[in-house]
Amino acid sequence: MDNQKIHMNGGDGPNSYANNSEYQKQLVGYSKIVMTELIEQELDVGIINPDCSPFCVADFGCSVGGNTYLAVQNIIEAVETKYKSNEQDQENPQLQVPEFLVFFNDLVQNDFNTLFNYIHGNEPNYFTTGIPGSFYGRVFPKAFLHFAHSSMSLLYLSRIPEEVLDRKSTAWNKGRIHYSCSGAAKEVEAAYSNQFRKDIQAFLDARAQELVPGGLMAIITLTILDGVLPSDSPMAINFTILGSCLQDMANMGIMSEEKLDSFNLPYYYTSPMELETLIKTHGCFDIVRFEKLPTPLRQVVIDVQTAVLSMRVVTEQLFQQHFGKDITEELFQRYAEKLDSHPVLKDDNYRTDASYFVFLKRKTETSKPGS
Amino acid sequence: MDNQKIHMNGGDGPNSYANNSEYQKQLVGYSKIVMTELIEQELDVGIINPDCSPFCVADFGCSVGGNTYLAVQNIIEAVETKYKSNEQDQENPQLQVPEFLVFFNDLVQNDFNTLFNYIHGNEPNYFTTGIPGSFYGRVFPKAFLHFAHSSMSLLYLSRIPEEVLDRKSTAWNKGRIHYSCSGAAKEVEAAYSNQFRKDIQAFLDARAQELVPGGLMAIITLTILDGVLPSDSPMAINFTILGSCLQDMANMGIMSEEKLDSFNLPYYYTSPMELETLIKTHGCFDIVRFEKLPTPLRQVVIDVQTAVLSMRVVTEQLFQQHFGKDITEELFQRYAEKLDSHPVLKDDNYRTDASYFVFLKRKTETSKPGS
Repeated sequence: MDNQKIHMNGGDGPNSYANNSEYQKQLVGYSKIVMTELIEQELDVGIINPDCSPFCVADFGCSVGGNTYLAVQNIIEAVETKYKSNEQDQENPQLQVPEFLVFFNDLVQNDFNTLFNYIHGNEPNYFTTGIPGSFYGRVFPKAFLHFAHSSMSLLYLSRIPEEVLDRKSTAWNKGRIHYSCSGAAKEVEAAYSNQFRKDIQAFLDARAQELVPGGLMAIITLTILDGVLPSDSPMAINFTILGSCLQDMANMGIMSEEKLDSFNLPYYYTSPMELETLIKTHGCFDIVRFEKLPTPLRQVVIDVQTAVLSMRVVTEQLFQQHFGKDITEELFQRYAEKLDSHPVLKDDNYRTDASYFVFLKRKTETSKPGS
Repeated sequence: MDNQKIHMNGGDGPNSYANNSEYQKQLVGYSKIVMTELIEQELDVGIINPDCSPFCVADFGCSVGGNTYLAVQNIIEAVETKYKSNEQDQENPQLQVPEFLVFFNDLVQNDFNTLFNYIHGNEPNYFTTGIPGSFYGRVFPKAFLHFAHSSMSLLYLSRIPEEVLDRKSTAWNKGRIHYSCSGAAKEVEAAYSNQFRKDIQAFLDARAQELVPGGLMAIITLTILDGVLPSDSPMAINFTILGSCLQDMANMGIMSEEKLDSFNLPYYYTSPMELETLIKTHGCFDIVRFEKLPTPLRQVVIDVQTAVLSMRVVTEQLFQQHFGKDITEELFQRYAEKLDSHPVLKDDNYRTDASYFVFLKRKTETSKPGS
């Protein structure tokens, strides 16, 4: 499986991502103040050539909902403010507020129709485009973008590491659906971590080419705090429960053991230290800020149905593609029952995850991606 | 009604535009040779700034099918050829073949999901984006585009002229669904023509701002030949038959008389002379070529089912939005029966329409839109 198949539930129905992504929305809100401050501080208004270029913004992994709209709105407002304050500089009268061209990027399977309807309904003050394709490769021309944004998208691997599905490998993850699931071998985590390293490298390579020198990039991603074992994370509990529901269904003959063994979830939760090291090693970006965001309220006080729905909107497509459309109703019913009797939603000791805000600047010297 | 609602049948099913637009495809094919020749002749390779700009192409009114892909492919090949021949010019070694960024434009209701899947499946050698919005207004930043294309889209008016739906107006088109329908008053045609004039002006205004000086634009559109009465066109026969089917259904009580009176089709078939005059009057574009294209084969030899389907894929959404989803099956059955007994599909005397290819160049002096 490669990530060409990963997408959130589309449309705007009760099981849609658009209507069940409050958690992600709160993170975008938390990042607004720091992002505004850093744009004011770091943006060189001269990076656009007013003769041939609007100010180009891209959101990588935009999905379909209001979160991408909100994130982009925050960026545009901050950039406008910066240009407006600069306009009053009598010595540089040519640097007026530019026109904005915003590119919403996600995989080609993303529901762009719902996205476009949502964005247009809000009558944005910028030109709107959708740009389909995996952000682990180039999706833009060289030196074209001025600001890149990506929120909660880099935890999706481009593919499941091969060895995890290989019976002959020590990293074979038999009977489990994720490296964090209870009882998974260390080699499984290593395989995921290795894939993440390659993916981040590919992501930074592509963005380093697409961003102009001095271009900015803001990333929000979910991490497991340094020193915490993957199996002690709240995701581990959730995926272990989900996996056990699938195992129950396999035991009942609803699916084969082989079918279950050939499925793993393509999510990787990096640690702050791992991510920071990978960015530094890459070499094309200066790290301007790397900080922990507050924990969204909905994660602190959460009911089972909300938790199930939040899990469902991001994973349902993956289960349906592998096991067929018919199994998900039963799967999430079973998941709700098991989750209800587990302390993970109520016990603060499970809060070992944290979202991080990372603000990068494309180095102005002509450092090549990967060098 | 405004044209925010006009879109072809989406998806890729039996009634989809994607699978029933052979006529339009043939026109794109016919235009290839002349377009290639004119790009070679007219394109100034220096119009892009290689430091900050890829070569930007837009197709306005792209819809969902393979025709937009084909048209864009023809453009890119010709532009590449031009740059390659220029590369061999030792005196200008910097003008390499640029990267291409292609924008597929249509109304926000267009099925971009189907479009993106189709384009990506063909692994294009350019960066692909979708840009939703009416092409009768600005959809791009200023001086951003290098090549604009629009095939069979300018015959869709931005709106139905108000007076056509106004009981008190001499242009009220009671009981008919188009100005070309048998018995329509002259004032109805005048109202449509007036709306077309405003729309073309708006289209050229927007493109004049979006295209760089020296930028190129190719338009294919369907016309009624000069001197032919609208009511003598093949569209007139088809719309009169369609209208009479709706009238039959109104007589049977399937819909009210008022519902029928408040519906008109938003298509206008200009004449070559009218179109040429409007472009010249606008003043921002030089007309490089204005020529008649051959008649597509499918129009010469056509069976009733194909004709009905061709009509259905472009009009069904309009009928459904106004009369409800349930009426179209019956409407197109009735239409098929009446069309079968009419000579319009077999008699060459009805061939009074013709498609035209128009190639324009944005004037390099800073002429303002509308001046």
